[in-house]
Amino acid sequence: MRGLLIVVSGASGTGKGTVCKKILDDMPEVAYSISATTRLPRPGEVDGKEYYFLSRDEFQAWIADGKFLEFADVYGNFYGTPLNKIEERLNRGEDILLEIDVQGALNVKRKCPDGIYIFLLPPSLEELKRRIEGRGTETPESLHRRLANAVAEIKIGLEYDYVIVNDSVDNAAAQIKAILTAERCKVARNLDKFDLEGVD
Amino acid sequence: MRGLLIVVSGASGTGKGTVCKKILDDMPEVAYSISATTRLPRPGEVDGKEYYFLSRDEFQAWIADGKFLEFADVYGNFYGTPLNKIEERLNRGEDILLEIDVQGALNVKRKCPDGIYIFLLPPSLEELKRRIEGRGTETPESLHRRLANAVAEIKIGLEYDYVIVNDSVDNAAAQIKAILTAERCKVARNLDKFDLEGVD
Repeated sequence: MRGLLIVVSGASGTGKGTVCKKILDDMPEVAYSISATTRLPRPGEVDGKEYYFLSRDEFQAWIADGKFLEFADVYGNFYGTPLNKIEERLNRGEDILLEIDVQGALNVKRKCPDGIYIFLLPPSLEELKRRIEGRGTETPESLHRRLANAVAEIKIGLEYDYVIVNDSVDNAAAQIKAILTAERCKVARNLDKFDLEGVD
Repeated sequence: MRGLLIVVSGASGTGKGTVCKKILDDMPEVAYSISATTRLPRPGEVDGKEYYFLSRDEFQAWIADGKFLEFADVYGNFYGTPLNKIEERLNRGEDILLEIDVQGALNVKRKCPDGIYIFLLPPSLEELKRRIEGRGTETPESLHRRLANAVAEIKIGLEYDYVIVNDSVDNAAAQIKAILTAERCKVARNLDKFDLEGVD
């Protein structure tokens, strides 16, 4: 069976990084999406494990071939999420987890409509406000702007498949596990089971 | 939140009765669909609990009003599955389990498209053959006919949402539980969570 592409997103401050780490810890069959980069490998890093290590020319060629879901230049090194590599792994039956920002996930959805799009919500807007304030780096103006952004981002969640209120990491992870089990039972993912050719 | 209508079906011999009983035993929040009947209540039976007890005139009126998903005359008494009562309970937030034959489920799907349609498969056609043979009441001809019917019924499963291979009651029930958890996370069932009117 083709693996599942699991895309987890949510407004900033909803704790998606912690939830994704819990999923990877608990579910050995789920692997994180591997980025490509032009930076040099550090000692011990293996191509195709921590990163796909590309030369700048290779990276530019991948951009030109539309192989990236997204890419960015970070302090002079390129980083990108390679759709071609994700597709290869899905076709080998691996389940791939992709943690991505709210708008990026919608771009992925256009390219991979059979992915599973999960949106994390904070327990409440008040709680999100507390989490943003808790960073202690906000002026009243920047806090107001961040909250307005969060509200705008949350509205984008209406275009996802599933929504989970991240009231605790354990609850959120358990719900994501149930979603993966359910998705594996979808008829559209199990058409081979209805192939009864040659049966008496 | 509106309750879930959980429709479980499968070719004869796939063990749907046993799986449904396990779900009801394990999940107190899920209740079985209650049938209507014209037979008299037995001592201790309560209207709206074991059955909805109707007079023949009332039953005929419900038929005329299209209130039944299906009904049948069994030895002079009518029995039916009342859609109006299921809708009332769903709107109260109850989750309703309906065990129904393969073709009946498709009729329900036309009337309740927001239900969850789960199709049970035997572990293999060979296993289904053994289960049918195991009843010990089949001639070679009737066995062949029953198997051909089962194959035809299984093809109908392609119109369901989910398919579960009933290799063990515990596994099948666990998968159904995961499906219910996942369905409760569907964005379409949680639109209220995106209503941020009046938020600062």
